[in-house]
Amino acid sequence: MERNKFRWIKKIQKVKNVSYQFACLPTEIRNNILSEIKNELINNTQIILDSNQKDVKKAIATKLKQSLIDRLTLNQKRIQEMISAIDTIISLPDPVNQVISEWTRPNGLKIKKLRVPIGVIFMIYESRPNVTIDSVALCIKSGNCVILRGGSESINTNKTLIKIVKNAISNVWKKFNLEFKDDIVLFIDEPSYDIMYELLKLENYIDLVIPRGGEKMISIIKSRSVIPVLSHGSGICHTFVDATADVEKSIQVCFNAKVQRPAVCNAMETLLVHKDIAEKFLPKMAKMYIEHNVELRGCKKTIKILNQHGIKIKPAKLQDWTTEYLDLILSIKIVENIDEAIEHINKFGSHHSDAIMSTNSQNIQKFCNEVDSAAVFVNSSTRLHDGGVFGFGTEIGISTSKLHARGTMGLNELTTTKYIVVGDGTIRT
Amino acid sequence: MERNKFRWIKKIQKVKNVSYQFACLPTEIRNNILSEIKNELINNTQIILDSNQKDVKKAIATKLKQSLIDRLTLNQKRIQEMISAIDTIISLPDPVNQVISEWTRPNGLKIKKLRVPIGVIFMIYESRPNVTIDSVALCIKSGNCVILRGGSESINTNKTLIKIVKNAISNVWKKFNLEFKDDIVLFIDEPSYDIMYELLKLENYIDLVIPRGGEKMISIIKSRSVIPVLSHGSGICHTFVDATADVEKSIQVCFNAKVQRPAVCNAMETLLVHKDIAEKFLPKMAKMYIEHNVELRGCKKTIKILNQHGIKIKPAKLQDWTTEYLDLILSIKIVENIDEAIEHINKFGSHHSDAIMSTNSQNIQKFCNEVDSAAVFVNSSTRLHDGGVFGFGTEIGISTSKLHARGTMGLNELTTTKYIVVGDGTIRT
Repeated sequence: MERNKFRWIKKIQKVKNVSYQFACLPTEIRNNILSEIKNELINNTQIILDSNQKDVKKAIATKLKQSLIDRLTLNQKRIQEMISAIDTIISLPDPVNQVISEWTRPNGLKIKKLRVPIGVIFMIYESRPNVTIDSVALCIKSGNCVILRGGSESINTNKTLIKIVKNAISNVWKKFNLEFKDDIVLFIDEPSYDIMYELLKLENYIDLVIPRGGEKMISIIKSRSVIPVLSHGSGICHTFVDATADVEKSIQVCFNAKVQRPAVCNAMETLLVHKDIAEKFLPKMAKMYIEHNVELRGCKKTIKILNQHGIKIKPAKLQDWTTEYLDLILSIKIVENIDEAIEHINKFGSHHSDAIMSTNSQNIQKFCNEVDSAAVFVNSSTRLHDGGVFGFGTEIGISTSKLHARGTMGLNELTTTKYIVVGDGTIRT
Repeated sequence: MERNKFRWIKKIQKVKNVSYQFACLPTEIRNNILSEIKNELINNTQIILDSNQKDVKKAIATKLKQSLIDRLTLNQKRIQEMISAIDTIISLPDPVNQVISEWTRPNGLKIKKLRVPIGVIFMIYESRPNVTIDSVALCIKSGNCVILRGGSESINTNKTLIKIVKNAISNVWKKFNLEFKDDIVLFIDEPSYDIMYELLKLENYIDLVIPRGGEKMISIIKSRSVIPVLSHGSGICHTFVDATADVEKSIQVCFNAKVQRPAVCNAMETLLVHKDIAEKFLPKMAKMYIEHNVELRGCKKTIKILNQHGIKIKPAKLQDWTTEYLDLILSIKIVENIDEAIEHINKFGSHHSDAIMSTNSQNIQKFCNEVDSAAVFVNSSTRLHDGGVFGFGTEIGISTSKLHARGTMGLNELTTTKYIVVGDGTIRT
């Protein structure tokens, strides 16, 4: 372990050194690397699928969970999706050296605030091999060097993908006659936890850690890392159907928020209903959910109303209000007024994505102001909280932190800022 | 301890609850609170000075360091400075609800990214009582509730200042006929470390911790806190005098960067000189420093050149390149070329503020691109890295972190963002 540890630390120091040079390359070269990766993916599809089959066979033999095997498995369609993601990233504006603001001071000092790459990003992820390509593409576009540590279950696929990436990069260096002694992309082909923990101490060489995976893995990384961690938050999302809501629209939106893809962070977990609309809205809504196999758990008032319409559901316990089901399960609560709805969301939610269905502009304003979430949706589905839907092309996740990034994260969130201050012998007086 | 702990936790929960309501108040009311605080400071100057005298007498009796006593002591001038700071903060634009960007998607979805208050800020600081007023003013202006924990040495002064703040707030509630059951400003009048450590665990009620003080205190807080910490970084700042630099301007700027106020983070600690200008620049520069009691520590080449001019200085050791002297001490190194200068800065510096003196635009561009610091200065003094100088009115510190805030931090850095997404029954397809 000790010897390997030092071998990795040495390699990572080299990535840090080269990162200053890489951050200064023009957009054209960074986009060229992405195009080359795309070409290599197209030319080597069969090789990728073959190495992926090795991982899948091993996963079946070692009885990995079916959901993990699904995420691990590549096919033509999934490789096509990686290629489309690269195309989108190429087409996005370059964040590097964007001028955020620029002004001149009375003493003649010219101040500019620029967007610049963060430096070296350490991606830690689990089975899905597309994360390898997505992360490389996002980091390279934003001028960052990247260290990748995928799961052991996808090691063969990842090794092939990394070979493709390295070929692509070296083709571009040749094409532009550039000399880069060291790697801008480093793959940790030794998926040991001890090595990973050691790397999480290298705050002088790694600028940011981005874990993608289960809540448990993220929490371990957060507690072990002395490097800042930017992570995807869990989503306990709500929809509040106000007294003045359009019933038909509310049914469409609430159905979409729960059923369209229940296993993701922006799916609704709790439905809050104003008492004055409950009789009109809830029975119809509940029938639609039940027809689509959604298990409902309600407060006492909800149970009573649905009972009167011959619908029997389970009671919701305190724990239901704080659970991210990620499944076809929904908790329902009838509230006295908008204040109770807002209080419930701020108290039990995860500050991710919350929606109001209402036609009362004062209530809409109040909800938008007082709900303390990364995104507040008005007469629309929480499922819309997504980099693609928002027009950012792609995302590296959705942050529920209030620092650095809040909500869907794209290329801009992989940058920091730098002040460039130009004087003419200017001093502080 | 246990009983007191729960008492504070309860109080802090109440601050969190009230923070949602406070965040929604209009600019006028927040500015009114600042004006009232200003009036109360003017009307109660003598009472403040009296309570400060108690602290100062105790500090003298307990033999506190003279520098700490200086920082603790208030006088008419320092109270006037607090008042001016409030005036500046009132005059600054309100960051709350500023629209950062706004667009409409092809499906009709209207997306807005707003600047909003972070929520509850926990300020932890040492002797200087002006931090109490500055922090309250910055937090209130940016729509945040604030919990204050000052040092035990300034407890009497702080208690008086907080009484003034509370009076001011309650006057405004009366004036606008507002009902705020709980405190928007909470002062921890029990400067126990154990209580502080307990509060650093309350991630559900406190959104951000800002420590202001020595490096040791900040490092303890960072390691103890589960709440995000935004801290002021230490400054190992450099000036590189390039071969093409204007010698006269370089002397003025380098003198200012070291001597004007050596005890602060943006003062220069290391001077890097291109070998081709060393003979012309260094002897004159060194004489000026020595005349002003600056102790010089040089590399071998520096020692040799100065020796030829009859100037004897100490040798610089490896440790000198990584030391923040905060004193009239300067380390000097002669470099072969700009690459060596940039490498030295990125390797030994603290990524705070670094300057180049040059008339070569290619070198200036290279330095600005490759030096990985919060602010890069061209032909100007690193001492200019300051919220006031930059035109932000005031600052809560200078961040050397790459996440959330980099460089001088003002009102904007006390805010986060929120997406408001408006549809018309819009769903994800």
